[in-house]
Amino acid sequence: MRPGAEMRTLTVQLNERSYPILIGNGLLDETGRFLKEAGFRGKVAIVTNPTIAQLYLDTVYESLEKSGFAAKPILLPDGEEHKNLNTLTTLYDQLIEARFERGSCILALGGGVVGDIAGFAAATYLRGVPYIQVPTTLLAQVDSSVGGKTAVDHREGKNLIGAFYQPRVVLIDIDVLRTLPRRELIAGLAEVIKYGIIEDAALFRLLEKDVQKLVDLDQELLAQVIETSCAIKARVVEQDEREDDYRAVLNFGHTIGHALEAATGYSQLLHGEAVATGMAKAAALSKHLGYCDDQTLERICQLIAQTGLPLELPSGLNMRNLIEGMEVDKKSAGGKIKFVICAGIGKTRFHSLAPQEIAKALGV
Amino acid sequence: MRPGAEMRTLTVQLNERSYPILIGNGLLDETGRFLKEAGFRGKVAIVTNPTIAQLYLDTVYESLEKSGFAAKPILLPDGEEHKNLNTLTTLYDQLIEARFERGSCILALGGGVVGDIAGFAAATYLRGVPYIQVPTTLLAQVDSSVGGKTAVDHREGKNLIGAFYQPRVVLIDIDVLRTLPRRELIAGLAEVIKYGIIEDAALFRLLEKDVQKLVDLDQELLAQVIETSCAIKARVVEQDEREDDYRAVLNFGHTIGHALEAATGYSQLLHGEAVATGMAKAAALSKHLGYCDDQTLERICQLIAQTGLPLELPSGLNMRNLIEGMEVDKKSAGGKIKFVICAGIGKTRFHSLAPQEIAKALGV
Repeated sequence: MRPGAEMRTLTVQLNERSYPILIGNGLLDETGRFLKEAGFRGKVAIVTNPTIAQLYLDTVYESLEKSGFAAKPILLPDGEEHKNLNTLTTLYDQLIEARFERGSCILALGGGVVGDIAGFAAATYLRGVPYIQVPTTLLAQVDSSVGGKTAVDHREGKNLIGAFYQPRVVLIDIDVLRTLPRRELIAGLAEVIKYGIIEDAALFRLLEKDVQKLVDLDQELLAQVIETSCAIKARVVEQDEREDDYRAVLNFGHTIGHALEAATGYSQLLHGEAVATGMAKAAALSKHLGYCDDQTLERICQLIAQTGLPLELPSGLNMRNLIEGMEVDKKSAGGKIKFVICAGIGKTRFHSLAPQEIAKALGV
Repeated sequence: MRPGAEMRTLTVQLNERSYPILIGNGLLDETGRFLKEAGFRGKVAIVTNPTIAQLYLDTVYESLEKSGFAAKPILLPDGEEHKNLNTLTTLYDQLIEARFERGSCILALGGGVVGDIAGFAAATYLRGVPYIQVPTTLLAQVDSSVGGKTAVDHREGKNLIGAFYQPRVVLIDIDVLRTLPRRELIAGLAEVIKYGIIEDAALFRLLEKDVQKLVDLDQELLAQVIETSCAIKARVVEQDEREDDYRAVLNFGHTIGHALEAATGYSQLLHGEAVATGMAKAAALSKHLGYCDDQTLERICQLIAQTGLPLELPSGLNMRNLIEGMEVDKKSAGGKIKFVICAGIGKTRFHSLAPQEIAKALGV
């Protein structure tokens, strides 16, 4: 942390599973100190990928060693297509080979893929070891690193195998966004827009006014928006940790988004891009069903477009695949999906819909 | 349940994760009714193996269908050597193919292998679906079906990948023990003997007097001993669900037992047989370290032998493998194992030991 730099701290309140989210500049340099203060010692597995390793592994590794930890880097292949049981198996193998014990700690240094898979490994290695999230993409910083959803994908759908397992600390260093490709930064903003739509009209207005400043990496605004996003996520997770009910609002745009990712083989679209299109379509469906007015739909589409995110389904999409993608949705019950509806900026409802009904309403 | 037959009911008290253990004769015929009373409906996956399927699948299937459930049998290959990530993957595939949803229920019909793997699938499929244990071996009835430890093995050691995830109901039908091979019945008694050693001198004395009646399937005595065993397990689990500390007493005899299973390729010895030898060796080590007297060691060895369980390590055992097996023990910290010591019948202590120290004390 740079001298004099301000650090923002939030807490996710979940009784004995509560944990802090630390947000600031230059936090990576102090990883070892934060872990020590959190009560850890001994071995730390730094789970990351080659791209992130090249940029930040040395910083994290040296900080840990300086604080007396025995750090062991474990590199996973990069990309959603590797977030599967095979990669997980190689991660288990390396943890076992290095004799990681129950008191050892896993540190996820990377974006959503690294965080999800390292978190699931932590949830299941020796029936659970502690883990730390150090998210390096905007999407992971505002969404996937907070709330304890861990998973790997199955060829039939995203995140079908996983666990609810909370991290012990989330360490968000805003400086790392400087090396994030612009396309990924913009994709991360899709989740920030989502928070505005589902919970926070003021955040939505701020984005309408200043989203370009975020794309231009305005540090103060980034810190503020990340903090607001994490706070919204924390409040939702505190109310319904295991998504028995209300937490499903966080899936706004994700029913169609996930199916879109699956139908395009997880390679054409970034998660945030698929979610952006999913939100535009969910908003259109919300209007179609009479939950929101023209102006709300217009504002949502306008902000998505203004951010540089896609509004339309990719041309040449196989619609049969899209419907099948929705059919394996985890949120389905009795073949119907608990679809998140926008009922005006900052308000949501649930509406039970069959995948075919969703597709029909989309005019596909 | 046969008319007039008595049913014993225990509860594992874990707040919102509390659940009943039902013990009696003829309960399998009423599976559907019990699940309905527990609030389930819709799909039920009956996870079992070919041997058990041939004996009991029709009974369970028909009972479920009669109560309005849509039952889907899923057969796993039989044997500890199949309790691995590969078998788990095929189970996930079948759950996904059959479109199992979050409200769907998994029913584990079988011994420890089926229960452990089906339980872990339940813990991780869609980040957790409810499951029911219907144990068909004595070992599963008195031990593995209660307490929420789920896992698969890794080639480097047993149960290295898993989760703490409690079932919603445990349904123990004593009648099924009539078809259990005698060797497996006797192996199950090892865990009953363990409860006597660690917690209950009266149970130990009862076994000294009447263990042969149990081998001869005395129904009343079986019901009593299963109830006592489940009650001891429940009390320990209630105190320390995630084995942060005290629950480790349940591992008496298991440090050496697990290593023994690994060193013999999981095929030569049944789990209970390995635990029996492990308990004899742990008792010898306890005496060696001054925690118990000659007479205690003598009584433990006498009861194990009288039950027909092995006291000695198999000849030709590779000692290097045995030590390596202990080195990957989940209970290790800083390279030392939290070894469970017998401090007299019904009393335990923990003693921190390196695998080499254990091997040396065993004179191997």
